[in-house]
Amino acid sequence: MDIGFIGLGNMGVAMVANLLKAGHQVRVWNRTAERARALVELGAQMVETPAHAFAGDAVLSMLADDAAARAIFDAGLLEHAPRGLIHVNLATISVACAEELAHEHASRGLHYVAAPVMGRPDVAAAAKLTIMAAGPAEAIDRVQPIFDAIGQKTWRLGSLPQHANVVKLAANFTLASAVETLGEASALLSGYGVAMTDFLDVITSSVFPGPVYQGYGKLIAEGRYEPALFKASLGLKDVRLALAAGEAASTPLPVASVVRDSLLDAIAHGDGDKDFAVLGQVAARRAAR
Amino acid sequence: MDIGFIGLGNMGVAMVANLLKAGHQVRVWNRTAERARALVELGAQMVETPAHAFAGDAVLSMLADDAAARAIFDAGLLEHAPRGLIHVNLATISVACAEELAHEHASRGLHYVAAPVMGRPDVAAAAKLTIMAAGPAEAIDRVQPIFDAIGQKTWRLGSLPQHANVVKLAANFTLASAVETLGEASALLSGYGVAMTDFLDVITSSVFPGPVYQGYGKLIAEGRYEPALFKASLGLKDVRLALAAGEAASTPLPVASVVRDSLLDAIAHGDGDKDFAVLGQVAARRAAR
Amino acid sequence: MDIGFIGLGNMGVAMVANLLKAGHQVRVWNRTAERARALVELGAQMVETPAHAFAGDAVLSMLADDAAARAIFDAGLLEHAPRGLIHVNLATISVACAEELAHEHASRGLHYVAAPVMGRPDVAAAAKLTIMAAGPAEAIDRVQPIFDAIGQKTWRLGSLPQHANVVKLAANFTLASAVETLGEASALLSGYGVAMTDFLDVITSSVFPGPVYQGYGKLIAEGRYEPALFKASLGLKDVRLALAAGEAASTPLPVASVVRDSLLDAIAHGDGDKDFAVLGQVAARRAAR
Amino acid sequence: MDIGFIGLGNMGVAMVANLLKAGHQVRVWNRTAERARALVELGAQMVETPAHAFAGDAVLSMLADDAAARAIFDAGLLEHAPRGLIHVNLATISVACAEELAHEHASRGLHYVAAPVMGRPDVAAAAKLTIMAAGPAEAIDRVQPIFDAIGQKTWRLGSLPQHANVVKLAANFTLASAVETLGEASALLSGYGVAMTDFLDVITSSVFPGPVYQGYGKLIAEGRYEPALFKASLGLKDVRLALAAGEAASTPLPVASVVRDSLLDAIAHGDGDKDFAVLGQVAARRAAR
Repeated sequence: MDIGFIGLGNMGVAMVANLLKAGHQVRVWNRTAERARALVELGAQMVETPAHAFAGDAVLSMLADDAAARAIFDAGLLEHAPRGLIHVNLATISVACAEELAHEHASRGLHYVAAPVMGRPDVAAAAKLTIMAAGPAEAIDRVQPIFDAIGQKTWRLGSLPQHANVVKLAANFTLASAVETLGEASALLSGYGVAMTDFLDVITSSVFPGPVYQGYGKLIAEGRYEPALFKASLGLKDVRLALAAGEAASTPLPVASVVRDSLLDAIAHGDGDKDFAVLGQVAARRAAR
Repeated sequence: MDIGFIGLGNMGVAMVANLLKAGHQVRVWNRTAERARALVELGAQMVETPAHAFAGDAVLSMLADDAAARAIFDAGLLEHAPRGLIHVNLATISVACAEELAHEHASRGLHYVAAPVMGRPDVAAAAKLTIMAAGPAEAIDRVQPIFDAIGQKTWRLGSLPQHANVVKLAANFTLASAVETLGEASALLSGYGVAMTDFLDVITSSVFPGPVYQGYGKLIAEGRYEPALFKASLGLKDVRLALAAGEAASTPLPVASVVRDSLLDAIAHGDGDKDFAVLGQVAARRAAR
Repeated sequence: MDIGFIGLGNMGVAMVANLLKAGHQVRVWNRTAERARALVELGAQMVETPAHAFAGDAVLSMLADDAAARAIFDAGLLEHAPRGLIHVNLATISVACAEELAHEHASRGLHYVAAPVMGRPDVAAAAKLTIMAAGPAEAIDRVQPIFDAIGQKTWRLGSLPQHANVVKLAANFTLASAVETLGEASALLSGYGVAMTDFLDVITSSVFPGPVYQGYGKLIAEGRYEPALFKASLGLKDVRLALAAGEAASTPLPVASVVRDSLLDAIAHGDGDKDFAVLGQVAARRAAR
Repeated sequence: MDIGFIGLGNMGVAMVANLLKAGHQVRVWNRTAERARALVELGAQMVETPAHAFAGDAVLSMLADDAAARAIFDAGLLEHAPRGLIHVNLATISVACAEELAHEHASRGLHYVAAPVMGRPDVAAAAKLTIMAAGPAEAIDRVQPIFDAIGQKTWRLGSLPQHANVVKLAANFTLASAVETLGEASALLSGYGVAMTDFLDVITSSVFPGPVYQGYGKLIAEGRYEPALFKASLGLKDVRLALAAGEAASTPLPVASVVRDSLLDAIAHGDGDKDFAVLGQVAARRAAR
């Protein structure tokens, strides 16, 4: 397929490489052009403006946040896009922003698919992302080959794009809660001289299997917060989006508020670029350990 | 082996049945004798006093809480017990109570093994409990055949009995946090008309496999809180013990405080006997859903 | 003095009336003109555009929120304003917005004074507002007669306008915390059949005198939440601003998060237009009373 | 009157001195006799056992906590006390303990008056305590002269003794919330370089007058946490009692949980003997200031 791709962060670069590997043609655009060079060597075509990328069979975007999305996908860009184009927004953005974008695309005859992904850059590189897709069914059908090239599984979450964002935010919130809980549990255990690894062995072999408790648990047990696989500052962004979605639906999320405060504590201590698992250090600090 | 068993709640009854099945001799005592009748038919010997059960190769106990443990295992009982007897306390009690009991047993030449178990009555009936054991190594070695008869896996957590209790409380806290989080996530999703089952499909197939997210998630998705597999009131007991252990070690556990408040809300609304998953209903009520 | 006034909500109307009473000339502008009629009868001059009001010796503004402030005080308006004009922003807005406005005014030779006020419409009508003013000292000196006409006391909080906003948000947060606490205390008392009025008599006669504990306490004791003196929805706006200011300074405010969740609960139950004291009802509902 | 007094901490000593000054005869008992010496010089009679103090027209007690109260006022002591004796318990104890004591006294023909006091030792020395009294009306009538000698005001809170304890715990909770809030506000202000004293000037001159905001606010502004007027560790005891009372009545008190966690943080950092105002330092630490 003829694909445009906007936003070449670590995630975007990995996804484009997989699209090229699968035989797709990809026009790439990024705010800073250097990010595109390695991809050009792999066969990507670098374009000068977002508008040049916003064309073809489909355009994918992976921008940092709401502000970036709103800045790029403004009225001008949408107005001049070819009718019928499918825009697949892979980024984790707010529910409100997703609703707006969906509306603005639809009113101009463009298809908007929200498809936030779960997985860190290493997972993206392995083409093993979990994709949560929502939007017009035919549009999703048509871009399914794209999803197959970058992910291991696509979940279809209905025709309202923002539903995919709600599910993504709820998943991120669940993750954030688990990491905070591991941090607090770790502080409790250390207060009695019990090894975190002993605790992790028990729970991950029984009722809490899976990569979250194993992976983040290990980082906390080892106090190894650098290099970050997923930064605390990005975790805060996710929790903030979950809280905002909750607020817009008048839904208290008290555990999310607790995580938010712990992340602010981490960031205040200069640990925003450390791994999300640094919540273990925050919990330990509260207990003076 | 010649085993005494004290405390025939749903868990105790299931464990004794498995001990009998494995060929052990079991003397059973319970505050109310009726609980013992079915076990007598399976071959258990009903005894009149805790002291009669507190003898043989080893004695196991599964009493409701600290108060019950302190009432039964008082100075009188311990004083008259045969030196060298191994007492395996399977109950979830406070760290402080475990320390006290360990000390009182040791000072009288008795062996105290803390071996709290993870798993509900159905798991106990299937002899699939996860056992967290700590105490004198030789004592644990000697009762390993007992553990093999009631559980699928025994974790050895060192020589200080209370360490097993700390791990158990941390595991229960992790469980409680996960259920509260599922409840809050459910409230968020319903605020946008997204099906909880869609969300659960995504997370349990990817980063949150395992029985907790699947099992409690399903109960919340279906709003099915009766009959209780694990009662909210027992969940509150566990969270209270975790908070108390935290307090004794000057360790804040803010997520545990959130869960505690949600459980109080449930109990205030008459739902203490409903399943722990009723936290989903509490979160929904906060959002007027 | 020749004063422009932008924003005629309940607070603005009361303040303009007092300015007129004190002999000032006031040009008023509001998005909907009806709000201005009664003031015209008192001697105010109604103008057609914000730009007509943004002139004279000084201009005062009292707009609902950041969005309203940004929409009115845009580059166009500021560009065409007479150099040296003093703009006194009386509204409770975010610290970030205050910083932006201060910068945008200064860069065009305009004076920006942040002067958020404390007091509800009845206090404004009585010209008894507490004014927290920060900005260029000479500018504040020149508008002091204006402050004298609308308030009973002006606090000078330095030369950085946003400092006044920080103090205002901290004061509002303190208020919010006190009301939430009264609500929770009320729920506790009712759980034991103790009269809230007995409790209030004790604390307001001893360590907690003053209008907050007396006033909100009385509303909670009587369960009288309508008509609202200060709406729960406005309370949420204030708490949100405090949390945002905290987040920008990496400062956790856990009590503010608790109040936020209680306010969301109130709003979810359709009580956003009731008095802030409705937090008492939220706390009672959590306890099923 | 002929008064027995049990428990000579800083509060007890100050109260006995005032009772002697008012012309009462006072028999005093304390676990460690040294505390009584200075009072003997003022005219008190030191007795050897609690039983010797538990006699006369009335006996007052001011013991540290539930455990101390239960240890002294056991069945033996009550059994041998003269029928009709009035016991005035001035201590801050749990609601549950107060109910028990009330019951045990009444069943033996003794009058039990709960009369927890508000005020620190300096206030006690000045005979300016606020007294919250509940119990049999005639009993309170008869000991009113005693209250007049030690306090400035007695509040009558009905015939159920524990009601006085509930009011006391609610008042202490309100205090704890205010101090935590001042701490958080201080952290917020410092994040923007605003002086805490500026903020305190504004709020204590307007909507938050009174000794709590002024007194604790000043300590936080100055970072002066020693010597303690009221220790953080005692503050934790009070918050714990409020939470326990809430739990027994299935009443969540989320703000109390927040304060509890901040106090644990303080104690973990070795600040349990510092003033309650050290919550300001905890809030600052969370923000890395």
